[in-house]
Amino acid sequence: MSHQDDISPLALNRISVYLRCLRQLQEQEVHRISSKEMAHRFHLSAAQIRKDLAYFGEFGIRGVGYDVAHLRERLEKLLGVEREHPAIIVGAGRVGTALAQFPGFRTSSFRILGLFDNDPRKVGTRQGELTVRHSRELGTVVADVGAEIAILTVPAEAAQENYDALVAAGIKAVLNFAPVQLELDPRVRAKTVDLTIFLEELAYFLR
Amino acid sequence: MSHQDDISPLALNRISVYLRCLRQLQEQEVHRISSKEMAHRFHLSAAQIRKDLAYFGEFGIRGVGYDVAHLRERLEKLLGVEREHPAIIVGAGRVGTALAQFPGFRTSSFRILGLFDNDPRKVGTRQGELTVRHSRELGTVVADVGAEIAILTVPAEAAQENYDALVAAGIKAVLNFAPVQLELDPRVRAKTVDLTIFLEELAYFLR
Repeated sequence: MSHQDDISPLALNRISVYLRCLRQLQEQEVHRISSKEMAHRFHLSAAQIRKDLAYFGEFGIRGVGYDVAHLRERLEKLLGVEREHPAIIVGAGRVGTALAQFPGFRTSSFRILGLFDNDPRKVGTRQGELTVRHSRELGTVVADVGAEIAILTVPAEAAQENYDALVAAGIKAVLNFAPVQLELDPRVRAKTVDLTIFLEELAYFLR
Repeated sequence: MSHQDDISPLALNRISVYLRCLRQLQEQEVHRISSKEMAHRFHLSAAQIRKDLAYFGEFGIRGVGYDVAHLRERLEKLLGVEREHPAIIVGAGRVGTALAQFPGFRTSSFRILGLFDNDPRKVGTRQGELTVRHSRELGTVVADVGAEIAILTVPAEAAQENYDALVAAGIKAVLNFAPVQLELDPRVRAKTVDLTIFLEELAYFLR
């Protein structure tokens, strides 16, 4: 397991996909599955599944396959999602409020425990189970709920100052939806998700 | 240029980032820029910029740098975004309506020309500049506006049937936000964006 830190974002993303599949299989009370059957059910590559899992020391038994519960546990630990991660959202605009109620998070290990904005018209409004709080309360709430991850959904021009405020508040990782390159603090892991980039990736194949 | 089809999604995404930077530079009336200065302004790697651009035959002139307008044009053509791409959104839930009004698309080459749902309570409602239309009108509208790209924001259990309807309507590429592995038609390019995966990628570095 000494090579775990070398794992690429793409490989991590494949592990996330396998984990999602295994959770579905458990719900359907499937206890064992071969790479071939898993590939068939979820439209994946059986060879890639075997290769990725073997990399982490997991080998299916010929004719029997993988133990679904065991493999799920292993992959959860590998990704660090065997425990809950308290998270907050900064920016209660359209994207922020949509994410605050995103059903996909409910079955994940991420719990959205705070939603912030500095617009007084938004502060105090209800979004699903959350009440929008003023951004100046960021530090207190992050400490109170032990938030580790922040989702940044403010306008581009406000992204850097809010990122800096999150760093100061002790957040450890930021998922940024603002279409800007942030000046990053080396202590805080960040990932920018630019939705236009995904469309441009598709456009490339339409040339 | 014969190796263009080999270009990886990651390299494509870097090209998208450079393009975004060049557009900003043009707005700021910067006409020439070195890889070093571009790296500094946008928190990128100068060596990576030079390597990526050289791969497509673009070399900065020592002491002068790259011609911003020329490079922007080249990268737009490379990505196939030198022209507008008519697009539609299927699923007028929280994510779909947020995307329908996503400010980042306004400065992109993607034009959202239709928003669809099969919920009669949503059909006819106004979302920014769009009126929600019934999913059964998909085929007609796709043909009318010449839509090439669809953004799929329906619940997981409805994703496959809506994907199939988009294929039948003649859509060429699908950006899927539903957290499912779709059974894909080989004629239609698809990309699934699973927001939980980005959080899991961050969680990995919090272990």
